[in-house]
Amino acid sequence: MKVAVDAMGGDYGPPVVVQGAFMAAEELGIIPVLVGRKEEVEREVSRYRGKGVNYEVVHAEDVITMEDTPLSVLKTKKNSSIRIGIELHKEGYCQGFVSAGNSGAVLALSTFILGRIEGVERPAIMTLFPTVSGSHVSLLDMGGNVDCKARHLYDFAVMGSIYVERVLKKPYPRVGLLSNGEERSKGNKVTKEAYDILDSSSLNFIGYVEGKDIFFDKVDVVVCDGFVGNIVLKVTEGVAEAIYHFLKSEVERSLIAQIGMLLAKGAIKRFVKKVDYAEYGGAPLLGIEGVCFICHGRSSPKAIRNAIARLYEFNKLGVLELIKEGFKN
Amino acid sequence: MKVAVDAMGGDYGPPVVVQGAFMAAEELGIIPVLVGRKEEVEREVSRYRGKGVNYEVVHAEDVITMEDTPLSVLKTKKNSSIRIGIELHKEGYCQGFVSAGNSGAVLALSTFILGRIEGVERPAIMTLFPTVSGSHVSLLDMGGNVDCKARHLYDFAVMGSIYVERVLKKPYPRVGLLSNGEERSKGNKVTKEAYDILDSSSLNFIGYVEGKDIFFDKVDVVVCDGFVGNIVLKVTEGVAEAIYHFLKSEVERSLIAQIGMLLAKGAIKRFVKKVDYAEYGGAPLLGIEGVCFICHGRSSPKAIRNAIARLYEFNKLGVLELIKEGFKN
Repeated sequence: MKVAVDAMGGDYGPPVVVQGAFMAAEELGIIPVLVGRKEEVEREVSRYRGKGVNYEVVHAEDVITMEDTPLSVLKTKKNSSIRIGIELHKEGYCQGFVSAGNSGAVLALSTFILGRIEGVERPAIMTLFPTVSGSHVSLLDMGGNVDCKARHLYDFAVMGSIYVERVLKKPYPRVGLLSNGEERSKGNKVTKEAYDILDSSSLNFIGYVEGKDIFFDKVDVVVCDGFVGNIVLKVTEGVAEAIYHFLKSEVERSLIAQIGMLLAKGAIKRFVKKVDYAEYGGAPLLGIEGVCFICHGRSSPKAIRNAIARLYEFNKLGVLELIKEGFKN
Repeated sequence: MKVAVDAMGGDYGPPVVVQGAFMAAEELGIIPVLVGRKEEVEREVSRYRGKGVNYEVVHAEDVITMEDTPLSVLKTKKNSSIRIGIELHKEGYCQGFVSAGNSGAVLALSTFILGRIEGVERPAIMTLFPTVSGSHVSLLDMGGNVDCKARHLYDFAVMGSIYVERVLKKPYPRVGLLSNGEERSKGNKVTKEAYDILDSSSLNFIGYVEGKDIFFDKVDVVVCDGFVGNIVLKVTEGVAEAIYHFLKSEVERSLIAQIGMLLAKGAIKRFVKKVDYAEYGGAPLLGIEGVCFICHGRSSPKAIRNAIARLYEFNKLGVLELIKEGFKN
């Protein structure tokens, strides 16, 4: 399986992306097609040549930055690594595309180049969050669609359910609508309308869920608009980071506490890993006629590797076809 | 200073509320006016009689539960502890009202009975969050107003600024609009409009802020609608609780880690206190013609005490008058 990889994406650029792509190539046998400025990419690739791993490099002159807007990338930077990567997938040369770059640009270009699945009005970015039982919960949309209609939230619920059922192997996943309270009287204008649509659908809709329910295995698919989804994602990151800061400054005040934390280091390391966003690899873009994964800008090589691994699994399980089927009725 | 206290409010009812009220009475010299079912309240009060603290009990037959909607409490349960408590404040018999009960009911009844400050369309619930430096950040609205117009967000910004400037003593507080990204191109329909209003106002508007900025001293007043605010609040609680769970289950896997955590116990206790919502006491309801504080349902006696203490400070600093002045222009 060939996977197009945006070698220029992410806060750390080619060094991190190329390392991650080679990890995936070595472990999974996929062939990464590294798209980006040839010279820069080749320089990184040279470090892994001895490994006998198959790979390709495709030159892309332009680099999309975080400042480029979704609208501008449709008109300019025609030779960007993101555009060329998605085109390689469109032509069928690659079986998917992974990028840790500007997620708005990936969403805009993949929707434009690959098109939407029939019946889906708005593709969505789906993320997995860890739960206390060691399982995962799917959240969407995580930033693609800022102003949503009720119907869009329903589409997200269908796509999330199919993903969770097939990839996470949870039959009849519980779908919750993120709201400001559990009671049916809660919610805003859009969620109230979406509640009715979901309630009369064939999905396993359990009603409104609250922000604190996300992590406690009360729900399998959490649906919200991209504005709220992005805030949930960033607040989660912020709280985890802040708690780390608080704990560190507390421990620094006492030698005994320092010794204590040293003894508990292994446990803390595993715990940090559990809440580390980068660990989970990429977020699939659901609703497009193709397979694109978006990674966090701060992705480590391992996160890139994990995103490619998840894309590999996504294809093996035929999730794209399943979603298409889900919208045929 | 007499403060009306909803003795029936909160998940634990009179035992916790009465204890908290007596703590405040003893430490601050305020006189709590305990509103609720006389028999139940007196039973709790009897435990503190030896302390020689001044207090009063006012009977209220009805109890508002979490299931009552804001609309229903305007029409029924005319003798609820919340309604009578707010009326005692309206008549001038008490200088404020504190409740750990149904926050929607407190918001509805205080708006109905006390009225809004001239110029304010929507009163808001303001919460303080801890930041990593040991300071605080103000967030509003935290659940009162689910669907907001841009103008409402501006009102919240004005009220939050005055509170932070006067109570937290931060001159010219930085106001941020919570959004799905820092760039001006981000935001939804309402925040885009609010951005323009805030940008041309005399407030110290710093633009969009993200969910992760809340805890890192990048902003002093974070403005959002009550739907988003409630989700932020609940996600913050959920992440903190989930992290506690993760850490506990990790530590349980190893004896050495257990010993380590035992040594670090004091530090961890102080840290949990820092992120414990209950510690901060109540959230003021800003924009009404009066002084009402809403506490978390799970409030401890100390949280009730802290809410009364904060109300006391609020009055001493004349924050209500300052907010009224802020809307005179």
